[in-house]
Parts: sequence; structure tokens; C-alpha cells
Amino acid sequence: MATALIEYADASPEVRAVYDDIMTTRKIDWINNFWKALANDPATLKRTWEDIKQIMAPGALDALVKEMIYVAVSVSNGCDYCIATHTAAARKKGMTDAMFHELMAVTGMANESNRLANGYRIPVDEQFK
Amino acid sequence: MATALIEYADASPEVRAVYDDIMTTRKIDWINNFWKALANDPATLKRTWEDIKQIMAPGALDALVKEMIYVAVSVSNGCDYCIATHTAAARKKGMTDAMFHELMAVTGMANESNRLANGYRIPVDEQFK
Amino acid sequence: MATALIEYADASPEVRAVYDDIMTTRKIDWINNFWKALANDPATLKRTWEDIKQIMAPGALDALVKEMIYVAVSVSNGCDYCIATHTAAARKKGMTDAMFHELMAVTGMANESNRLANGYRIPVDEQFK
Amino acid sequence: MATALIEYADASPEVRAVYDDIMTTRKIDWINNFWKALANDPATLKRTWEDIKQIMAPGALDALVKEMIYVAVSVSNGCDYCIATHTAAARKKGMTDAMFHELMAVTGMANESNRLANGYRIPVDEQFK
Amino acid sequence: MATALIEYADASPEVRAVYDDIMTTRKIDWINNFWKALANDPATLKRTWEDIKQIMAPGALDALVKEMIYVAVSVSNGCDYCIATHTAAARKKGMTDAMFHELMAVTGMANESNRLANGYRIPVDEQFK
Amino acid sequence: MATALIEYADASPEVRAVYDDIMTTRKIDWINNFWKALANDPATLKRTWEDIKQIMAPGALDALVKEMIYVAVSVSNGCDYCIATHTAAARKKGMTDAMFHELMAVTGMANESNRLANGYRIPVDEQFK
Repeated sequence: MATALIEYADASPEVRAVYDDIMTTRKIDWINNFWKALANDPATLKRTWEDIKQIMAPGALDALVKEMIYVAVSVSNGCDYCIATHTAAARKKGMTDAMFHELMAVTGMANESNRLANGYRIPVDEQFK
Repeated sequence: MATALIEYADASPEVRAVYDDIMTTRKIDWINNFWKALANDPATLKRTWEDIKQIMAPGALDALVKEMIYVAVSVSNGCDYCIATHTAAARKKGMTDAMFHELMAVTGMANESNRLANGYRIPVDEQFK
Repeated sequence: MATALIEYADASPEVRAVYDDIMTTRKIDWINNFWKALANDPATLKRTWEDIKQIMAPGALDALVKEMIYVAVSVSNGCDYCIATHTAAARKKGMTDAMFHELMAVTGMANESNRLANGYRIPVDEQFK
Repeated sequence: MATALIEYADASPEVRAVYDDIMTTRKIDWINNFWKALANDPATLKRTWEDIKQIMAPGALDALVKEMIYVAVSVSNGCDYCIATHTAAARKKGMTDAMFHELMAVTGMANESNRLANGYRIPVDEQFK
Repeated sequence: MATALIEYADASPEVRAVYDDIMTTRKIDWINNFWKALANDPATLKRTWEDIKQIMAPGALDALVKEMIYVAVSVSNGCDYCIATHTAAARKKGMTDAMFHELMAVTGMANESNRLANGYRIPVDEQFK
Repeated sequence: MATALIEYADASPEVRAVYDDIMTTRKIDWINNFWKALANDPATLKRTWEDIKQIMAPGALDALVKEMIYVAVSVSNGCDYCIATHTAAARKKGMTDAMFHELMAVTGMANESNRLANGYRIPVDEQFK
């Protein structure tokens, strides 16, 4: 059976603290299923949230670019849940239709040319070693 | 045996026309091995170049963001040739060390959380359907 | 359309013999959909079952460890059917919640660090060659 | 360290029997490294060879089509060893340059459109359910 | 939310021209969801259709072999939409049950042996370099 | 070009602290290339090490089982560096030849049956939902 989803009302103080930080950081008032499932393992919930919080914060790359990279990886891996949630997150951060279309085109093309490079057994150019 | 690499001097006029367009478009004076290998099949060479030329041109996303998406996909797929060339291309377009580090962190994290979502069999939230 | 599922009552003697061996070996009284689908091709049904029977039998690794390895691979590949069935099989063989959580954590981490190793283009250490 | 390769001269009778069958079946007088590595585990050597012998034999699909499917999968997965050996095997069975080029084009295109279908979250048409 | 599907009646002349060419080329009177989703980005719709039209046309490989290669890749990548549609397309082009079963057997075997080659770290034979 | 590897002698105090903790925790006197590459980004070095230290510590699963799961994932993904290092780590923690052979057999089989389940489009049994 699928993993139980732990609601805020049923969560331990340890889990609630993570939920609170997620909602505060993201300025939202609800928790999506990813976290409610990880809450079955509070250590993984906390570690994963702290990692994502650190990694996805704006830095040398802005938050929208980071979300689009997340979408590109999730699409390449075929993770339905991740595609749905990170595409929504990218939209919320300003991804327009035109940006989404280009993101898909690049992701598709990269997946194609990766295989052409594999199949033709192309040696790395001296310039790139 | 690995695919023969077709040098400019040995190329047909049809292949040379593509090589010329690659060098003009990218403002470079050499051709990397990917194209020299595809040149064994001029139809694929031409189609792939025209696709990449269209897709990678700046649009709603700038050229550097597109290159970084290409790197994220290539890293997820483990394509050595593509990682080497597109990382170099991103550097040339302005990717700093800090940007590269964040690109890797997001790519790694996405690959991790994709599997947590798979393994915990998390249903897509109503909000994201 | 999806593959027809061949029930015991409708199966040929050849297919029934495999179904019987599955139920005897696993000490169960029903057949799951994987085998009912493969039964459309009796040669593949028989070969796949005999392979799995040989491979999943306790040996140098116990049956539970083998099931957890199966889950880790299925999660990495994003095979929904396989995740559902092999997680259930691992539970039946004694996987506790705590073991499942650690299995997911290791699987997620491995998927992340695989990509960091790819992206940073890390050469294999002399000690590991 | 990499796996030891077991040469015919050093092989047990059990392993030699498999090697002999490989050479007889394929009408060759040498063994490639895949089998020499698997020979460290005679049970896996025997099982894998018998599976491949059964699966790759001409049937409803001819031997060349089967080799090209093998190449398409190996290219999608990025398995260097498998790409090298199965491309050579396909060549030996009659794959021309033109066939190889089309095989690569289809493999590349499928990898691209797989991701477009993922990213656009396209529902399966009623007609195909 | 999932991508909107653009019906013929609601499509721009540019999109209708592609839809018409798809129906004419394939001798069908309806458009499947893949194209209706891509129609949100007419440039990608047109480019992808023209690529597929060129690549999937009979050449050195016949149309059925090409569809089966498409299926093998889609199965390896786990793309549900692509598996459903390209399996149906292969059936329409003449793939029998026996051919489908062999296609699956080869695809499964290739995915297995790809990992054995990876895990045993098998060096490419001199003959295949 | 490949990532620079940062030796202990050239490392900042922040990086040295991580290197010291790696060597102490693992009871070794050298640092492998993975960490020397990540050291270019001290934040990722520290986060990744702390994650791995937490995740790979013995818990409900022992350290050897965890390493074998790591190998299974790395083999499935085709990450050469990770296969080499985690196979060595598993050996060090007690993986015998027989255990390695069974690990490979299960990993290969899972990769095969994942694709059979995909290709036959098998619905999840009610019992496993």
C-alpha cells in the first residue's frame, strides 16, 4: 500500500517544526504530499528539507532558474510527482508559457543528442578534456 | 570500431555547408567531434544542427540558462561527451564557478528527491493536477 | 490496449505448471498480474520465473536483502508496478518501517551522488582501478 | 579493481562447456570479455548465456532486428561495453551504414519525444488504453 | 495542471497545417494527444512533426522495425504514454503477438546485460574498439 | 576540463575539517577524489558528507547492506566512478565474491523485469495498492 500521509494535526512536535519552517520559508499555508510522506521518517524529512532549503535558495542562480533545472531533471527521469510539483513551483516563480516551452524543447533535445553521442561513440575533443 | 570523424577537408559540399553555418553561428573556427561523427549521415547532421540552432537560440530563456539545462540533463543521463562539451559551452557563455556549483547541487538534489517520490509512492496533490 | 491477464482457469497446462510452481515456492494461493501478463508468452513466462526463482533464493545474501536491492533498483528506474510489488514482498519477508526508511534514504543518496560524480567528472582513484 | 577475466585455459569444465556452446552457436573461435567476466560466477554465466541464446535466436523477428533493438536499448542506457559489442554484432549480421544511421536517428528521436510526453504530462488517448 | 489539449476546431492555421499533414501522411482522421499538447508551442509542434516524419519514413529500415525500436526505447525509459502509442502504431503496421513478445524479451534482456556489463566493469575487447 | 582536485595541503580550514571527519569516521588516512572534487564547493562538500555520514551509518540496516544497495543503484545508473568506489567499500565491509555475484544477479534481473512490467503495461494488483 502507498505511504500514509501525516497531517499537521497528527504530527509530532519534531515534524511540526519542519512543516512550520516549510510554510514560513515558502510563504504558504499548506504542506504538499511529498513532505507528508517523508514525515514517516522524521530524520529524512528534516535532512531533505534542510538540503532543499539550502540548495534552492537564490544564490549565483536565481530561484526560477533552479526550479527549471529541477523540472528538466524530473522530466528526464520520468518522475510524475516531481514534474507536477516543480512545474507548478516554477510557474509560481514566474515561468511563462514561452519559458516552459523552451525548457521542454531544450530538455527533449538534450535527451536526444545524449543518445546520438553515446551511439556514435564520440571521443571527447582535446579542447574539452 | 568507433565512428570515423569527417574533417572539413574531406567533407562533401552538403556537409561543409552545415559546418560553415555552425562556425558562423557560434563565431568559432573549428568543429567539435559531435558534428564530425554525425557527418557520416548528412541528413541527421543537417536536421540535428537546425534543431539545435533553433532550440538553443536566446528566446524567453537566455542562452546560458539553456546551456545549464543541457548540462543538468546530460549529468542525469551520465553522457560523458555531452557533460564535457556543454559544461565548456556554459563556461564560455558566462557560467561562473559559483553557478556551476549550484547547478550541480540542484541536479543532484532533484535526482535524489525524484527517487524519494517514487519509493514513497506519493500521490499528486489535488492542487497540482 | 493493455495486455490481457491470463487467469489460472483459462491457462494452458504449460502455463498452469509455472503458476503452480510459483504458488508452491512462495507458499501463496494466488498469482499476481506480472505472471498473468507474461503468460501470453509461455516461453518468457517460464524463463523469467526460473531465473527469478534461482536468483531470489537465499544464498550468500538472504531473501530480504535481495528484495530490498530489487526495490532500490525499481525506485531508481521509476517502475511503479515493481515498486509496489517488491516493497510488499520485502514487507512480507520482514522489512520494518525503519528498514524501509533507511532503504529509501540510501537509494535517494546514491542517485544524488551518482550525478555529482558525473557532473564533476571525477577520475577513478588509483586505489579503486 | 575490475573483475578478473577467465580465459579458456584457466576455466573449469563447467565454464568451458558454456564457452564451447557460445563458440559453436556463434560460429566463432574466441570468447569476448562479457563472458570471461561472468565466468567468475558460473551460475550466472550459464543462466545468462542460455537466456541470450534463446532470446536472440531468429524467430518472429530476425537476428539482425534483434541486435538493433539491443543497440537501441544500450544506447539509451549509455552502456559503453554493450554499445561496442552489439553494434559490432549487428554489423556482422548485415547492418549497413544506412541502417545504423537510421537506428541512431530513431533511438535519438524516441529519447526526445519520451521527455516531451513526460514534461507536457500528456494523458493516454482513449483509443490506446 | 496538465497541458491543455488543442483541438482542430480551436487551432490556428499554422497548427492546422501540421495536423492536416499528420492526418494525410498517416492516412488517419484524428490527432492524438501528443500533438494536441505540443500545439501549445507551434514551433516545437512543427519541428517535432517534421523530424518524426523524416525519421520514421521507410528507408534502409522498414516502418515496422522503426516502430519496434521506438517501443524498445520507450519501455527502457518507462514512458507510459509513448509505450501505449508506439505499441499501437507497431500493431497497426503489422506487429504480431509473437513479434511483440520477442521485442519485450530482447528489451528486457538488454536492460539486464547492460547492468551486468556495468557492474562487472568489463573492458571493451580489442576487437570492438 | 575536469574539476580540480583539492589536496589536504591546499585546503581551507573549513575543507580540512570535513576531510578530518571523513578520515576519522572511516578510520582511513587518505581522501578519495569524490571529496577532493566537491571541495571546490565547500557548502556542497559539507552537506553531502554530513548526509552520507548520517545515511550510511549502521541502523536498522547494517553498513554492508547499505553499501550493496549503493552499488545496485550505481550499476543501474551506469556511474563508473560510483561503481568502482562503492564496490570497493562493500568489499572492505565484508562483501565476499559470492555476495557480489548475487548482488549483480539481482540487480540485473530487477532491471530486466522492470522493463517487462513497463512494456506489458501491467496494472498494479489490488492487493498491492
